[in-house]
Amino acid sequence: MDEFELIRQYFAPLSQGFDGSLGLHDDAAILPTLPGKDLVVTKDALSQGIHFFGTEPAHLLAQKALRVNLSDLAAMGAQPLAYFLAIMLPPHTDHSWVADFARGLAEDQQQYGIFLAGGDTIATRDMLSFSITAIGSVPRGQALRRSRAKPGDTVYMTGTLGDSALGLQLLQQPEKHSLPKEAYDYLTQRYFLPQPRLNAGHHLIGIAHAAMDISDGLVQDLGHICRTSSVAAVIEAEKLPLSSPVRTLLEQDGALIKRIAGGGDDYELLFTAPADKAMAVNMLASELSLPITAIGRISEGSGVTLTKDSKALSLGGGYNHFHK
Amino acid sequence: MDEFELIRQYFAPLSQGFDGSLGLHDDAAILPTLPGKDLVVTKDALSQGIHFFGTEPAHLLAQKALRVNLSDLAAMGAQPLAYFLAIMLPPHTDHSWVADFARGLAEDQQQYGIFLAGGDTIATRDMLSFSITAIGSVPRGQALRRSRAKPGDTVYMTGTLGDSALGLQLLQQPEKHSLPKEAYDYLTQRYFLPQPRLNAGHHLIGIAHAAMDISDGLVQDLGHICRTSSVAAVIEAEKLPLSSPVRTLLEQDGALIKRIAGGGDDYELLFTAPADKAMAVNMLASELSLPITAIGRISEGSGVTLTKDSKALSLGGGYNHFHK
Repeated sequence: MDEFELIRQYFAPLSQGFDGSLGLHDDAAILPTLPGKDLVVTKDALSQGIHFFGTEPAHLLAQKALRVNLSDLAAMGAQPLAYFLAIMLPPHTDHSWVADFARGLAEDQQQYGIFLAGGDTIATRDMLSFSITAIGSVPRGQALRRSRAKPGDTVYMTGTLGDSALGLQLLQQPEKHSLPKEAYDYLTQRYFLPQPRLNAGHHLIGIAHAAMDISDGLVQDLGHICRTSSVAAVIEAEKLPLSSPVRTLLEQDGALIKRIAGGGDDYELLFTAPADKAMAVNMLASELSLPITAIGRISEGSGVTLTKDSKALSLGGGYNHFHK
Repeated sequence: MDEFELIRQYFAPLSQGFDGSLGLHDDAAILPTLPGKDLVVTKDALSQGIHFFGTEPAHLLAQKALRVNLSDLAAMGAQPLAYFLAIMLPPHTDHSWVADFARGLAEDQQQYGIFLAGGDTIATRDMLSFSITAIGSVPRGQALRRSRAKPGDTVYMTGTLGDSALGLQLLQQPEKHSLPKEAYDYLTQRYFLPQPRLNAGHHLIGIAHAAMDISDGLVQDLGHICRTSSVAAVIEAEKLPLSSPVRTLLEQDGALIKRIAGGGDDYELLFTAPADKAMAVNMLASELSLPITAIGRISEGSGVTLTKDSKALSLGGGYNHFHK
């Protein structure tokens, strides 16, 4: 497997359309500075056996790796510009695998308007892993942040919660469910392919006080907003937006609420906004045809509480406050 | 091993001094755009068993990972701004290892004026690997490129050639040499710790036609310049700048010339400049107290030829032209 051949054949074509990539021929890429903009940079890594099985089709892995980074850009309100890929290939990776991986990237590049601008293709001794660095742009000084939630803010999230965590559970224990095929496919697909909420993030500039994406689970991630903003949050379990398959599974096993509120990989946006922006949030949801649901409230204090029927739910380990 | 604890304890302190890092508390970092500048972005990955043994002290691995990226910035004429680290830690990595890794980064941050701005800390099932994305700035439109060598240019390189390749050979076969300890230490140190030529790269703006760093070996890397510039190059073996330990080893075994000219990991700068810049190159060498040596010439045609006593040397595989 020749690094240069792989780059020429599969990766260089992905750099077309972004001049600063220099066709992947140079030591680095060049990003022209954009008047009136800040650049936003995020970097995530995924590793076989931890973040994915390794048996997934290569194009799905490629898209997941790219989309988790796009989701970080969305959380900052940024629009995608370029990305850099480091891919670490195990011995005996064949060309058809790399071709399928590149095909997945090409499809998502078209969908999200982003280009490959550089990176590194290396061998590993064993397992597959990769890291993507994605760069986006925001109007200067306007990037959304985690640290600006204020007491009295409403807590919102886009889309539905828990699909991905329950999708992963189905993949791990396919024999233990009685869902129709369509519902099974929906949940597992939500695990494989996050939908970065780029449009929502971009339009939340001027509306949201604080924002982030839900990647480690709602409770833990909201804990990050609370900690960096020095506030507390209460979430009402009844208000959590659930897809119909998740609702079905929850009716069969009420204890799943903890997995839904705590499981990861949702890649929906979590944000807070003041009461006078409620109308703007509703209009945005309608304009984007994307559910945006008020799920709780920010107050003074610290930690995250999940309530059901107005009683605090214990969230594992005997704690119902997460001070991450 | 808690990702958040590692970030808080070891990595967040490395982000101090760069406001856009947001203390590593957010989904992404913010880079303000710099008037009159372009940003240059490079990303390299290193993987255990391929790029390093894994038994090296953690601070040396950290510095090597950072410096190979700084060397790419140097090759573009850029000055360092910020970097992003994805680190993939094997099971049972202990805190003292991470502390030593962070100490290495802290030392190099101070030396090279760069800050950690973000990244990802993840687990792997097996081997250690990491990827760094480094961002630098250059005066707008002035980044050095590989593709602008012209017939008649002189080919130059900084520093000395082959130290690292022979250093690695010594590490792999420590019993097979008769070098004094000082020479052994010099060569192996050159393998462990590249010296990115940031000052030289920056000052080559306005002097060099084409530039890159030597990471895959002089002959192969010069081949990249030739291919992207559509020119040929002839290198004279007699002119290659060799350190005293490399000279000693070469006297013992003349065949080592191929390893010296073809071995990797030098991280010296390779550049071409027109004849009327010869004086400027010499003045720069003197100002920086860094050897800069004319080693050959660019002509029309394609491929790289290495000559000795005016005869072309065969460079393995029966070819003396590399058309990479």
